[in-house]
Amino acid sequence: MTAPDFKAWAQSTQARMENVLADVLPQANHLPARLHEAMRYSVLDGGKRVRPLLVFAAGEIVAASLERLQYAASAVEMIHAYSLVHDDMPAMDNDVLRRGKPTVHVAYGEATALLAGDALQAAAFDVLSAHRLADNPADQLRMVNILARAAGSLGMCGGQGVDLYGVGQELSLPELEMMHILKTGALIRSSVLLGSFCGEPLAEDARDRLDHFAKCIGLAFQVVDDILDCEADSATLGKTAGKDAANNKPTYVSLLGLSEARRKADELKADALDALAPFGERGQRLREIADFIVERRS
Amino acid sequence: MTAPDFKAWAQSTQARMENVLADVLPQANHLPARLHEAMRYSVLDGGKRVRPLLVFAAGEIVAASLERLQYAASAVEMIHAYSLVHDDMPAMDNDVLRRGKPTVHVAYGEATALLAGDALQAAAFDVLSAHRLADNPADQLRMVNILARAAGSLGMCGGQGVDLYGVGQELSLPELEMMHILKTGALIRSSVLLGSFCGEPLAEDARDRLDHFAKCIGLAFQVVDDILDCEADSATLGKTAGKDAANNKPTYVSLLGLSEARRKADELKADALDALAPFGERGQRLREIADFIVERRS
Repeated sequence: MTAPDFKAWAQSTQARMENVLADVLPQANHLPARLHEAMRYSVLDGGKRVRPLLVFAAGEIVAASLERLQYAASAVEMIHAYSLVHDDMPAMDNDVLRRGKPTVHVAYGEATALLAGDALQAAAFDVLSAHRLADNPADQLRMVNILARAAGSLGMCGGQGVDLYGVGQELSLPELEMMHILKTGALIRSSVLLGSFCGEPLAEDARDRLDHFAKCIGLAFQVVDDILDCEADSATLGKTAGKDAANNKPTYVSLLGLSEARRKADELKADALDALAPFGERGQRLREIADFIVERRS
Repeated sequence: MTAPDFKAWAQSTQARMENVLADVLPQANHLPARLHEAMRYSVLDGGKRVRPLLVFAAGEIVAASLERLQYAASAVEMIHAYSLVHDDMPAMDNDVLRRGKPTVHVAYGEATALLAGDALQAAAFDVLSAHRLADNPADQLRMVNILARAAGSLGMCGGQGVDLYGVGQELSLPELEMMHILKTGALIRSSVLLGSFCGEPLAEDARDRLDHFAKCIGLAFQVVDDILDCEADSATLGKTAGKDAANNKPTYVSLLGLSEARRKADELKADALDALAPFGERGQRLREIADFIVERRS
């Protein structure tokens, strides 16, 4: 049996995630219904599921079971989803569209959006601790700690803060990089690390290599996002495009120009692939994701 | 050596918590500084630390070390603190004072308040997984799960939702009770349970009794809150008093009247104390907390 090609693998993983998330989230008729509707609205039927794909791809390095990976991936995806709900709120980015749909606070009101985001973060740690996900429970506690650290003020929330306080300021390239390493990079790195705990034991230096891969890919993801944001219009991207430029937010494109930004994305991808070399065949899915992230058009 | 009286014990526990929380939270000069300032502002130097006291008191049942209990208590207190930050925001209760100080969004702005609350929730799961808190790592994973469940849409956030969607509606007494069992009760129950995992093994039926104690005490806490809210004025309570009545939110006092509400608090306390009887001397601190919660004047 040969492995399915990347597109088929990604689609089947995305379909699996849709089912698992629909199952893990409280049903929409469970009280308080409006809160659960909003949680499901924000998580289900949307997105490329890049972070879950990374969890599953990293899981192939350690021959992890899909059953374990799907719960670890659900946890990361719920953190990601909550961060979008809160970032879209009027106090933050004040976005009204997300993936072509009204944002949660537009559809359900600000109070429910606030609460749904809060509840999704709790749900992430719930699902990460409700099932046996690593052979060793102490390793699973490390998984909890990795996700908590990645989500918090020294990770994603911290990056969001640096972004927020940097609006209208001139950020240098290293400052911009630090912001993104926290804001989107921390969660992407935790995706790869979480997957790497779900199967066979892995030496720490091998895990460090995976982490370096994830760090490069996380930055590349953001560089490409900036490029797409600059190129795309609202219709094709399904969100309010060109908004960062309008808000005077620094981007890779504004600092480097379009062609240098493209070159930077390619360099990061090459660096990421180097880190994977020792894993041979088992690193194939991660290689394909690196391609997918850097070459995507939306 | 005789044990210190309750007041001395509570004060030393509160002082310990102040130190631990100050140590566990990122320093205020750590980037992004404004976010960390806001997190520290919301958590430090405030409150009766009722939930930490419950963690420590439950820890006496299983002879747990103070070292372990302080981290478990920090996790619960950070969840509590984040919920206050978000509940105070304009989209929710729109409160401007908390413990006599400007609320976080008044002092730091809405975006920072949103972010500080989010980061505090992550910090709670960080501290709960960063140290060895139970002899058995699998038990500690249960602690993570208990806190996540208590904080989420089937616990605290769910209760907040029921409360939110019930404004201006006639709630029956059972509906009001359900709301409070979720909104404040879930976290109080998790405080007692978390403490009970930090020491010697405990039989499940004994843990169930502790949980029943906590459920009664949690409700009593809310009944007394409603009574105090009705009686107090802004000056003595340090928050905007009589606000629930002004918002037409149902309370125990509005449904039962003041003297029936007082009787209900006493009944709940008696029920709680019954559940503790088999623990003998080791249940003394929990008994004292039951007294403290029901007899407090602020």
